[in-house]
Amino acid sequence: MSTLKGACIIGQSGGPTSVINASAFGAIEAALQSDAITKVYGAANGIVGVLDDRLYDMDAEDMDELRRLMYTPSSALGSCRYKLKDPAADDTDYKRILEVFKKYDVRYFFYNGGNDSMDTCNKISKFMQSSGYECRIMGIPKTIDNDLFGTDHCPGYGSAAKYIATSCMEVCLDARVYDIGMITILEIMGRHAGWLAAAAALASHKGAGPDLVYLPEVDFDMDDFLACVERVYKKNGKCIVAVSEGIHDKDGKFIAEYGHHDQSSKDSFGHSQLGGLAAVLAARVKKHTGAKVRGIEFSLLQRAASHCASQTDIDESYMAGRAAVENAVKGVTDKMVGFERASGASYKCEVKLLELTSVANAEKKVPREWINEEGNGLNSQFIDYALPLIQGQTKQESEDGLPRFAKLKKIPV
Amino acid sequence: MSTLKGACIIGQSGGPTSVINASAFGAIEAALQSDAITKVYGAANGIVGVLDDRLYDMDAEDMDELRRLMYTPSSALGSCRYKLKDPAADDTDYKRILEVFKKYDVRYFFYNGGNDSMDTCNKISKFMQSSGYECRIMGIPKTIDNDLFGTDHCPGYGSAAKYIATSCMEVCLDARVYDIGMITILEIMGRHAGWLAAAAALASHKGAGPDLVYLPEVDFDMDDFLACVERVYKKNGKCIVAVSEGIHDKDGKFIAEYGHHDQSSKDSFGHSQLGGLAAVLAARVKKHTGAKVRGIEFSLLQRAASHCASQTDIDESYMAGRAAVENAVKGVTDKMVGFERASGASYKCEVKLLELTSVANAEKKVPREWINEEGNGLNSQFIDYALPLIQGQTKQESEDGLPRFAKLKKIPV
Repeated sequence: MSTLKGACIIGQSGGPTSVINASAFGAIEAALQSDAITKVYGAANGIVGVLDDRLYDMDAEDMDELRRLMYTPSSALGSCRYKLKDPAADDTDYKRILEVFKKYDVRYFFYNGGNDSMDTCNKISKFMQSSGYECRIMGIPKTIDNDLFGTDHCPGYGSAAKYIATSCMEVCLDARVYDIGMITILEIMGRHAGWLAAAAALASHKGAGPDLVYLPEVDFDMDDFLACVERVYKKNGKCIVAVSEGIHDKDGKFIAEYGHHDQSSKDSFGHSQLGGLAAVLAARVKKHTGAKVRGIEFSLLQRAASHCASQTDIDESYMAGRAAVENAVKGVTDKMVGFERASGASYKCEVKLLELTSVANAEKKVPREWINEEGNGLNSQFIDYALPLIQGQTKQESEDGLPRFAKLKKIPV
Repeated sequence: MSTLKGACIIGQSGGPTSVINASAFGAIEAALQSDAITKVYGAANGIVGVLDDRLYDMDAEDMDELRRLMYTPSSALGSCRYKLKDPAADDTDYKRILEVFKKYDVRYFFYNGGNDSMDTCNKISKFMQSSGYECRIMGIPKTIDNDLFGTDHCPGYGSAAKYIATSCMEVCLDARVYDIGMITILEIMGRHAGWLAAAAALASHKGAGPDLVYLPEVDFDMDDFLACVERVYKKNGKCIVAVSEGIHDKDGKFIAEYGHHDQSSKDSFGHSQLGGLAAVLAARVKKHTGAKVRGIEFSLLQRAASHCASQTDIDESYMAGRAAVENAVKGVTDKMVGFERASGASYKCEVKLLELTSVANAEKKVPREWINEEGNGLNSQFIDYALPLIQGQTKQESEDGLPRFAKLKKIPV
């Protein structure tokens, strides 16, 4: 394999996670250490920073601060939700990217994001190939949603799952404290796949979790739901329910849209903006049972709560970033770094390279057979899958009793 | 001082905190160790458990599990929001309490709660005295609101403040990640006092916090608020605001009630049930600025997030529980355990005993001079006050990557 010498760009895209910067650090550190990579740039706000020629000089950063990226949530380089057009219809953006790549002699591009970002990688790579510009392009996955195809799990999921399970345990203790009836509805992120809501079942597994868990993998039936809630409530005087924001009825209509009919709010990928589901369900449950009902949205903390991150997830995210660079330098291109479990009794995560084309825009769901027959809980197959991913307390440094995050200089090039 | 021999009851009341059980453990441990106290009972759901004769045998618990109460959120014995009537008008409840006290030879009563609970302690004590029944009654404070009169701070506040400041730092990093304008409104608990919302300023002090903080201590002016938000947003493209749920206008009307006019929901103490403030403000801000606006409620996690508790707070809560028992055994009665800071450069917290009558139903607010002149931020006096209270990571034990909470037998007597 011939050595390809040149600069690299590392970019971050899509919704941040509490460990996406651990992947960025892995990639930056490996790139700084590589003889083939002559210069390391960070793209401001992902591909938008490339288009706008807004790059940061990563060689100018202090290594101690860079290392703190391991424990700093959100996307340190900035993110975007920009979707590249189909190059057959409009190749303006691609020509501009090529121009910037040529300007800085960029021969390596590492993009840290979800399935939309893998699509972006794939399109850029195809364009560079058709333009005869030699460039190695690797995707580094991140998504709390855990819905990327072909990988055992995604960097970011373990930490979000740990936060959700921990918070569920705490809320469940709180929700059972009074001598009065109470129904609590916990709204958890996850548009099409229920991995995050499923993490609430880890709390139930430890004896302090929701009574019922609803995922988008099973069509939601309002009457059945109300009957289940009432049954638990009548038996225990309390009922705690975890729901994925993406639950929908058999016609595909989101339950979050049952209450309000504003379907105009869509993001730039055409996805509906969900939310407010807890309020919709709380109103229905209150009407049906007459009980006191509280809705709680875990909201942004699910993807930002680095203080409750899984050290396993942090370490694996870092490994994914390094693997992208190390493999690219060795000649690999057009791959996303994925994970697989090594066979054997104890958990061990190994890197596996996946075709970008196989990952882009595909979604992996919770297997139906991991969900109970009634469709309102998870069985031991899910618990066995998820528990190893949430192990280990974060080694995050603290200062004055609060997290000490990385402070990058972000010097523009 | 004569030794008073007899049983004790320990009860918990009001909204739970993540450290109220540390106080309960301090009291239970000290009671179990005391020669004067012949039997240790826990009241199920506070004073309601006394009225209903539902007591748990604390002597039958395993000491290792009891010790885990230090790191178990919510009220392990159960809580209540029951308000005793004025005994001059109706002394039925008091006679019943006396009956139960006599039945079990209860000579010590320890009540762990907020200012309403101190009022309960005070009324019971007066009744016992007028009935000629010798009984020592001590209040053990807890409230995330930090609004109890006469004490430097309250057990529960430091942990809630640490969680709020930590979460604000994380959310603030997340809220600034995109290359598009965004205004974020964080709704924080606190009905009449702004101590909890003020904790958001600790995040700003560490460089990743809200731009604006609004407390109920300063009358809220909507026009002024919208102008401030717009100014920050125009300058930075982002604006992050922390608001206390209890902010109100100069006529005393809660801003949370600006949007919806349902004032019928009051709790059993006649307090309005607040909430939904973030949504009310988000709608106003969106209309005024045209920006993308997101509202986030920290909700129950503020009082339940034991995984992010302050070890300082845990240790002090434990100390307060022990001090109540140790002082009662020495002859003290009708006092609440309070805290004062020892003089000197470094922080040291000492126990101080306060008259129940001075604490009951009084509220301590954030001093106006700790708030900036514009009324939208805190100054260094608050930071100096609050920082010592959030020091130290919890020593909470974990099992399978999740918190290991106490599992009590709660054997009914």
